[in-house]
Amino acid sequence: MNVEELMAYAKRRALFWPSAEIYGGVAGVYEYGHIGALLKKRFEEVWTAYFVESQDDYYMIDGSNILPEKPLVASGHAALFNDILINCSKCNTYYRADVLLNDMGIDVSDGATVDEIDKIVKEQAVKCPKCKGAMAHAKPFNMMFDLGIGPEKDEKGYLRPETAQSVYLNFSREFNALRKTLPMGLAIIGKAYRNEISPRQGLYRLRELIQAELQIFFDPDEWKPILGRLGSRKVNVLMYQQEQMESITIKEWMEKYKIPEFYAYHLALIDTFYTEVLQVPRDSFRFREKGGTEKAFYNKVHMDIEVNVTSWNGFKEVGGLHYRTDYDLTSHSKGSNKDLSVNINGKRIMPNVLELSFGVDRNVWMLIDQFYKKIEDRDVLQVPAYLAPFSAGLFALQKDEALQKMTESIYRKLRRHARIALDDSGSIGRRYARLDEIGTPFCITIDFESVDKSSPNHNTVTVRHRDSKKQERVKVDELEGFISDNTTFDINKFA
Amino acid sequence: MNVEELMAYAKRRALFWPSAEIYGGVAGVYEYGHIGALLKKRFEEVWTAYFVESQDDYYMIDGSNILPEKPLVASGHAALFNDILINCSKCNTYYRADVLLNDMGIDVSDGATVDEIDKIVKEQAVKCPKCKGAMAHAKPFNMMFDLGIGPEKDEKGYLRPETAQSVYLNFSREFNALRKTLPMGLAIIGKAYRNEISPRQGLYRLRELIQAELQIFFDPDEWKPILGRLGSRKVNVLMYQQEQMESITIKEWMEKYKIPEFYAYHLALIDTFYTEVLQVPRDSFRFREKGGTEKAFYNKVHMDIEVNVTSWNGFKEVGGLHYRTDYDLTSHSKGSNKDLSVNINGKRIMPNVLELSFGVDRNVWMLIDQFYKKIEDRDVLQVPAYLAPFSAGLFALQKDEALQKMTESIYRKLRRHARIALDDSGSIGRRYARLDEIGTPFCITIDFESVDKSSPNHNTVTVRHRDSKKQERVKVDELEGFISDNTTFDINKFA
Repeated sequence: MNVEELMAYAKRRALFWPSAEIYGGVAGVYEYGHIGALLKKRFEEVWTAYFVESQDDYYMIDGSNILPEKPLVASGHAALFNDILINCSKCNTYYRADVLLNDMGIDVSDGATVDEIDKIVKEQAVKCPKCKGAMAHAKPFNMMFDLGIGPEKDEKGYLRPETAQSVYLNFSREFNALRKTLPMGLAIIGKAYRNEISPRQGLYRLRELIQAELQIFFDPDEWKPILGRLGSRKVNVLMYQQEQMESITIKEWMEKYKIPEFYAYHLALIDTFYTEVLQVPRDSFRFREKGGTEKAFYNKVHMDIEVNVTSWNGFKEVGGLHYRTDYDLTSHSKGSNKDLSVNINGKRIMPNVLELSFGVDRNVWMLIDQFYKKIEDRDVLQVPAYLAPFSAGLFALQKDEALQKMTESIYRKLRRHARIALDDSGSIGRRYARLDEIGTPFCITIDFESVDKSSPNHNTVTVRHRDSKKQERVKVDELEGFISDNTTFDINKFA
Repeated sequence: MNVEELMAYAKRRALFWPSAEIYGGVAGVYEYGHIGALLKKRFEEVWTAYFVESQDDYYMIDGSNILPEKPLVASGHAALFNDILINCSKCNTYYRADVLLNDMGIDVSDGATVDEIDKIVKEQAVKCPKCKGAMAHAKPFNMMFDLGIGPEKDEKGYLRPETAQSVYLNFSREFNALRKTLPMGLAIIGKAYRNEISPRQGLYRLRELIQAELQIFFDPDEWKPILGRLGSRKVNVLMYQQEQMESITIKEWMEKYKIPEFYAYHLALIDTFYTEVLQVPRDSFRFREKGGTEKAFYNKVHMDIEVNVTSWNGFKEVGGLHYRTDYDLTSHSKGSNKDLSVNINGKRIMPNVLELSFGVDRNVWMLIDQFYKKIEDRDVLQVPAYLAPFSAGLFALQKDEALQKMTESIYRKLRRHARIALDDSGSIGRRYARLDEIGTPFCITIDFESVDKSSPNHNTVTVRHRDSKKQERVKVDELEGFISDNTTFDINKFA
């Protein structure tokens, strides 16, 4: 599907659409319909189970979207969280400079400076795409949304630009409430806000976005997760300033590029998450190193997580793995005048941070891109069963009292542990088609044999499999176990 | 507990605390630590199961926090979502007028006008509590946070003041994606923002809050949920302008005050939710009618949901049930120039809205207030098991390889369906105490008999009950079922 086709599907089947659409919307702000909300929730649940709940010292917390000014001065965001803006001196249209140039086929790195942009614009005689006017000088533009708080609106605040800051601000309280040991992992799934200069259609460049971020606080001298057999996983890696993607085992990569083992270990976890849990094909998945001006100055190692999405014709970032050193806690110690270093076994240290960062909206988009397929005459969202918005569809073959009574009774049992779609309109074929299109792995039909005491199929139902179209009879008594076993995410298979 | 004691507990046990606390925070903005995040999540899950997932035409959706200006002009918020501000003409301290007067023991209704406030201030010669200066004139203050969007920040937006608006804006898309029938229920659990003039300590008056709101769209001529046996529930009701609370059956109340049956039915559902699902004592729970200028002009019937919290010495609002008529869809039809009326069975109607609205933060506060108890020498958070942050604590009696191996194996089994706290420090008594204090309903101990093949207690563990302190041996094989049966919320017991 291309972007327009994917958006059309998303609108038709209640996945997502522009916010306040009936009023023309706000560029870069979307909302989720009931199917999208379920798919997003499944992704978040599986992410949490895999990265957070599987570790006994890792926890979800929840921070505020509104932050005061001081911590964002200390973190560097107030001064440095900028994009470069350039406008047409004739029609005054604004552009994000790197996007404008990239769209014209001019290569610009992520972290290009104002001077570099101005130089390129001059050398290449870049004109406004709209009116052919001359471009004005480039200038930095801070991407945070600012707020005026209080009765005179004179207390300055910001909408947080990343969930990570909320975690750093809570480090001390959590460290003291938990075991006072490292490593300690704190994660947030929540909103972040960026006043993007030119948001685009779809969920890749948003002004209001959802992040799932895990910050692991650790002592770099002591933390030694063992790569072990994970080292033999072969991954696709594109290193900074290299033309070619390498297919290399994680152990070889770690040794070749002198990567710390704790970093390589988490790269392996992320690789497992994408290729096994989310089941993204190996060839569509890679890590890409950010270097030079592209990466934040405090990141010691920075790999983007990328999936090759057909809707955007190429690899797109869905997350990142960042070794942020002790930059965050050191900055906030200085900014707040509270010493955030900790005492462990008689040693005073400033914890380092390894950040696993994921864009939830981008991952939802990516899942649809990867798994929405035309199979023969069917449209099927072939996501793994534990990611499906509904675990099963359930319907009576016909409007008949006995069938409906059994359907209701099964519904009440199943809904305790699974999200079930009841559907009573149209032919069974049309119900299958509707449920295939939103990824429902199983369809359960109650027919006349199900309620016929003289039939050998009494108290059994037909279960139809989404991918194979195979049908089988399952005993009513075994249905709850069948659905649960086949649609629940089991962390023990992966950790 | 009083407010200070409750806040101290909340900070110590990682429930919640002011946001960006190390920088002095922002008044009225809080964040949740790992225990608070779990308790909040449980409340949200139970709320969703009870009000939304139990109905087959009701769904969760997810809307944006940023909204453009137009819909909030159409909804009336841009003009009318005001509090009345009054400042001291000498020291310029700002006050929310009704709060200032109420704190002085002067009775002011929720919806008092600027003129009414000025009159009271003059008549009662109200002075500034800080400096005894004369008060300036009262003036309306719009409580929405405004945002500047785009490269020139000239596109005006707001942070939504309630989740409800997101639902109304999505009505059409959902109606078309669903069955095109009414009633249709759409719910959001999400953030809302209000620039409160004088936020207070604790979670009752916040600038950033979490709402759980269900909007039911219906045709008032056709929707006939039947009160039935729910009518015999005796509830506490305080009607507008009455001195005394009545204890009355819902059926009697409905007839006495000419309340529509669909409204009375939902009042009964809410009553069941609070007194049976959340287990708030009957005497601590009441409905309170809003009337006159206290209620929004478009509400035909408006009952606040109130719990008598000891930390605030009285009944406090935790939610509301609002019959909003067709005000919302009519307003947005006009504002957007899109006809939001629908055609059902050949009849064109503008759907009416019944809103069930809950403040999540207030409910979390209320749960702690109601259930944190001193029992003999213990501090116990006696919430119902399905609301507990952790379903069970799990520990080996001593640091012993065989015990730890069994503990790990049990942990891996249990964590698939329940949140388990591993705890390996201090005496068993101290572990019990720590887990009691955060409401953990069961503690599981693996001891030497558990791993001793010659013991009759081989492959059994000790399960200790939080409330009774009773201990029993449970077979390891039956533990998963035991924890699941005793800690999972089962909607079928209530719906």
